[in-house]
Amino acid sequence: MERFKCKIMYDGTHFSGYQVQPEKRTVQGVIESVLTKLHKGTHIRISASGRTDAGVHARGQIIHFDSPLQIPEENWLKAMNTLLPDDISVVQISRADPGFHSRFDASGKEYRYFVSLGTVRDPFRRNYSYQAGFKLDYEAMNESVKHLIGTHDFTSFCSAKTEVEDRVRTIRTIEFVESGDELMFRFVGNGFLYNMVRILVGTILEVGTGRKRPSEMKEILEKKDRSCAGKTAPGHGLYLWEVFYD
Amino acid sequence: MERFKCKIMYDGTHFSGYQVQPEKRTVQGVIESVLTKLHKGTHIRISASGRTDAGVHARGQIIHFDSPLQIPEENWLKAMNTLLPDDISVVQISRADPGFHSRFDASGKEYRYFVSLGTVRDPFRRNYSYQAGFKLDYEAMNESVKHLIGTHDFTSFCSAKTEVEDRVRTIRTIEFVESGDELMFRFVGNGFLYNMVRILVGTILEVGTGRKRPSEMKEILEKKDRSCAGKTAPGHGLYLWEVFYD
Repeated sequence: MERFKCKIMYDGTHFSGYQVQPEKRTVQGVIESVLTKLHKGTHIRISASGRTDAGVHARGQIIHFDSPLQIPEENWLKAMNTLLPDDISVVQISRADPGFHSRFDASGKEYRYFVSLGTVRDPFRRNYSYQAGFKLDYEAMNESVKHLIGTHDFTSFCSAKTEVEDRVRTIRTIEFVESGDELMFRFVGNGFLYNMVRILVGTILEVGTGRKRPSEMKEILEKKDRSCAGKTAPGHGLYLWEVFYD
Repeated sequence: MERFKCKIMYDGTHFSGYQVQPEKRTVQGVIESVLTKLHKGTHIRISASGRTDAGVHARGQIIHFDSPLQIPEENWLKAMNTLLPDDISVVQISRADPGFHSRFDASGKEYRYFVSLGTVRDPFRRNYSYQAGFKLDYEAMNESVKHLIGTHDFTSFCSAKTEVEDRVRTIRTIEFVESGDELMFRFVGNGFLYNMVRILVGTILEVGTGRKRPSEMKEILEKKDRSCAGKTAPGHGLYLWEVFYD
């Protein structure tokens, strides 16, 4: 048995999220069925750095799995990509330390979120950015974000369904980059809770449209109450961009 | 009755091309059904600058139609976009001269064609660029393209099914722009025959991969025989980018 570390990219549009669910097309389900084919029917289980929801995309999701197959690394890539559907690709695959774990060993993640600001909806971006179409006050947004950087209890910014008890996370970077009619949010941190990036985006957008004051961000954090934060922004604007390992 | 000129954008992925066909989802069919709704059941017929095939996209297709409705121009845009599905948008609409014709008045067109050169297929571009993945000799391609610029009989570069008898067209520009893992072809001319851009791309790519010599382009033109040119490149890499009017 050898352990493999694998970087994958997927367009989340036609997946019911990452995790296997009965009767649904999921990223995990599709990859496991390809690996099972390559192992002549032996079920191979994969583990990811984290789940992604329905419609959420990934450019650099990391998974790992164990295999007894003696195949050169470069052939793994071809073999998997030949069998995978065209909305998932394996970008990189390499042998890893037998103790490597895609989730527990991750030291940080980068997520990106795209918002379209054009007044006319862009058919080419309908599944890839949140078509908001409103004007935003970047100064207020930048002001609000200062309160989020650093180590905080992010209970207010995760789904009420979050099961994890320790909701303290460290956000290293939040930045906005405008390009044409689109605004890209970049989030880098040591880890993110369930729905955290989407709730952060939803709340920052409420600051950008003037529905919340920048200083409210601090109060929302302190309240530790999901209902104080803004709406959860739609999944299809979100990309798991990169997973970091030390 | 007033005539309206309308600029539309569509993602061609889920359309069986522009032109109405029984039982098929087409761009013309979808727009006419929206206009018919706005006219309380009276069928409104639209005319376009030209057809696009299945899977082919448009960023600046121009259509025209006549309507008796007294609606301010800015409300037309909203009314149509509210009823249209999210893979078509109206970008601009304005009253036009009653004699304006989207096809006969067009003085030129720009098409763009995208080719992905990455060795790993990109899930996000699967419907938007031709995933070729091979290396290209740009010098040879540029050399071959010189023979195509100007006014020529393009019989060798249009579908054998082309019904138009006059196959003389003028190409003003063919250029290649590389951006990351993608190569963009830009074609500007006074008009293009059926499948002409896709056959040009297919033939230029055969020069780029060394299967044809650059000077063969001249011979192919002179033969006036479709079978001498290269393969028709896939439709999903092609965009009708802009239509020009004097």
